[in-house]
Amino acid sequence: MTQDKIVQTVWREDALTALAIRAFKGLGLPHADASDVVKVLVQADLFGLSTHGLSRIESYGERLQIAGINATPTITVQSPAAALRLVDGDNGVGPLVGMRTLQAAMEAARQCGIGMAFARGSNHFGPISPYCLFAAEQGFASIIGSNATTTIAPWGGSDARLGNSPLGFGVPNPGGDPFLLDMAMSVVARAKVRNAFKRGENIPDTWATDRAGRPTTDPGEALDGFLLPIGGHKGYGLALLVDMFAGLLSNAAYLTHVKSWVDAPDEPQNLGHFFILIDTRMLGSPQWLTERMMDFANILHESPAADPAHPVIVPGEIELKKMTKQKESGIVLEPSVVKLLQQHAAHSENLL
Amino acid sequence: MTQDKIVQTVWREDALTALAIRAFKGLGLPHADASDVVKVLVQADLFGLSTHGLSRIESYGERLQIAGINATPTITVQSPAAALRLVDGDNGVGPLVGMRTLQAAMEAARQCGIGMAFARGSNHFGPISPYCLFAAEQGFASIIGSNATTTIAPWGGSDARLGNSPLGFGVPNPGGDPFLLDMAMSVVARAKVRNAFKRGENIPDTWATDRAGRPTTDPGEALDGFLLPIGGHKGYGLALLVDMFAGLLSNAAYLTHVKSWVDAPDEPQNLGHFFILIDTRMLGSPQWLTERMMDFANILHESPAADPAHPVIVPGEIELKKMTKQKESGIVLEPSVVKLLQQHAAHSENLL
Repeated sequence: MTQDKIVQTVWREDALTALAIRAFKGLGLPHADASDVVKVLVQADLFGLSTHGLSRIESYGERLQIAGINATPTITVQSPAAALRLVDGDNGVGPLVGMRTLQAAMEAARQCGIGMAFARGSNHFGPISPYCLFAAEQGFASIIGSNATTTIAPWGGSDARLGNSPLGFGVPNPGGDPFLLDMAMSVVARAKVRNAFKRGENIPDTWATDRAGRPTTDPGEALDGFLLPIGGHKGYGLALLVDMFAGLLSNAAYLTHVKSWVDAPDEPQNLGHFFILIDTRMLGSPQWLTERMMDFANILHESPAADPAHPVIVPGEIELKKMTKQKESGIVLEPSVVKLLQQHAAHSENLL
Repeated sequence: MTQDKIVQTVWREDALTALAIRAFKGLGLPHADASDVVKVLVQADLFGLSTHGLSRIESYGERLQIAGINATPTITVQSPAAALRLVDGDNGVGPLVGMRTLQAAMEAARQCGIGMAFARGSNHFGPISPYCLFAAEQGFASIIGSNATTTIAPWGGSDARLGNSPLGFGVPNPGGDPFLLDMAMSVVARAKVRNAFKRGENIPDTWATDRAGRPTTDPGEALDGFLLPIGGHKGYGLALLVDMFAGLLSNAAYLTHVKSWVDAPDEPQNLGHFFILIDTRMLGSPQWLTERMMDFANILHESPAADPAHPVIVPGEIELKKMTKQKESGIVLEPSVVKLLQQHAAHSENLL
C-alpha cells in the first residue's frame, strides 16, 4: 500500500515515452524498434485503452524473455504489385510489425491512391485506433484488421475456432476530429461477464453461450462457454472476413492454426494483419473534406437524445477527448505497470 | 386466383434474363444497359434474395416512368490516381451504375493489385452479394458498400438520420465455393417486426426502439420507431463508416441528404457506393488459395453443432446452394413480378 504511493502514476507523454523506450531496450529491442512499439502503446494509453496500452509490457516482456517473440527481427517487405505489400514480421513484437506494415501501406497508397499491406509472422499488435489515427493524420482513410487467438465458437458451433478479431476504420478530417472506429466482434468483452459473475447478476442471453454452445443468462456458465458475436451470424461472418484478410490471404496462420500466447508463450503465433489505406487528398481538397466531415458530425449530434444525459456521439469522440485531457494533465497508469517499466528500464541501463 | 395459375412462375435463367432485358428496354434502357441491370437482379433471384431481385422492377419502373431515374445516363469515369476511380452515375438505374463501378474497380485492381471505385449519382443497386460473386469469379476479393435512405436513428438519438447501409465481402476460391457475406446493419429486417405485430407477439428489446428512441418489446411501437443496429454502438459505427466511404468520400449525398425514393420518387437520390477489389492472383497460386479456402471452411464445418439439426455453415453457403438448385430446376418468381415484367416487355415490342 505505502509502496504504491511512492510510484508515480501520472506521467507526461514525453517522460513516459522515454521510460517505455528504455524498458523495451531492456528487453533487447534496438532503439528505433522500441520507439515504434512505444508510439502505439502510449497512444493506446492516451486514448484511455489501458488494457491494450503499456500494460502489455507484462505479456510482451514474458514472451521476449523466453524468445517466444523475436527481439531483433529482420522484417522484410515484398511488392507483388504497385499497390500491394507483403510484410514478413519475423516474429517481432506486434506493434513494431504493425508500424512497419502501416508504413508499407502508406507508401503504396501515396503511389496509387489506395494501398494494401498484409503482415504475417506477427504477434498481438495493440489496439487498432492508434494506427487509424496515425493514418488519418497523414490524410489516409483506413480499414485495418488483425486475427487473434481462438476464443469464439462458429455460429451454431460448440468449440473455439475463431478469434475475437478486431477491425478498425478511420477517416481523416483536415480541420477537426477524424472518425475512428475500433471494434471486436463480440457483443461484450469477457470482463463484463466476469463482473456480472462477481456481482451475482444474470446476463442477457445475447452475450454468451455455455460450453455446449447454447445461449445462457448464467455468467458462470458463460465463463466456461463462448462470447457471442454482434448480430449473431452477421458478427460471425465479419470475424471470419477479418481472419480471411488478416490470416488466410496474408499467408499467416488463421482460425485454429493461430497459436495461443497463453498456452504456448514460447512459440511463434504467426498472427496476421491487413492495412488498407486510401489517400483522401486525391479525392478532393482539404476544405472539401473538412466541410463534409463537420456537416456529417453535426447531422448526428443534432439528433435529440433519447436520454438527455447521454447526447449522441460520433465514433472516436470519447477517445479523442481523453487524449486531449491526458496530453494536458498527464497519462494515468496502474502502479504495477510503472514498476514493470522501471524494472525493464533498469536492465537497459545495466546493459550500457 | 385462377389468373395467377396461368402465369408461369418458374423460369429457366436464360428465358427469364431475355424477358427481363425486354422489360427494361420497354422502360427506355438501351440493350447493353438493360443487360447489365438484369445480370444483377437475376443473380439476386438465383440466390433466393427475391426482395432485392426482379421484384424491384416495380419501384425502378415507377421512377423510370416519371424520370426520377434517368433511363439513358451518360456515366463517366475519372482516374485521380492509378488505383482509384470516380464514377458519376448520372442518376442511372442503380445496378447499371453498380456494374460500371465494379468494372472500373476491376480495371484498377488488375493494374495495381488493389483498386477502389467510388460511385455518386446512383440509386438502389440491388443486393451486394451478386457483385461479390462476379468479382470472386474473376479472382478478386471484395469489400463493397452502399448508403441508403435514412431509416435508423443515431445510437442514443431519436430520429432517422442514417441508412440501414448494406456492406458486403467476398473472397474467391478457385477450386470451390467463394466466401460471400452481405449484411445490413440492423439486428433484423423491418419485415420481422411486422410479422411479430401481425401474430400479436412481443419482440426482444434488442431489435428496435419506439419513436422516442427507447428500446421496446412492443412490435407496434417498434414500427413507429427505429430498427436497432447490431451490437449497439458497434453497428451504429459500421453503418456510419459505410456512409462515409459510399457517400461522403464519393462526393454523393450522405445521411439526411439522401433523398427518399418513397417520398420523392421523381427526384435524383444521389446515392453513393464504393467497391474495393483485391487481385488475389498476385498473392499466391490458385492451388495455394484453394487449399487454404478449403481448409478454412473445413475447420468451421467440423465444429460440433450446438443443435444437431443445424450444422455450422460458412457465409454464402445458403445462397450458393439455392443458386445451384435454381439453375437446375428453375427460378421461382411471384406471379405479380412476372406480370409486371411482361407488361413492360410488351411495351418494348410496341416500340420496335
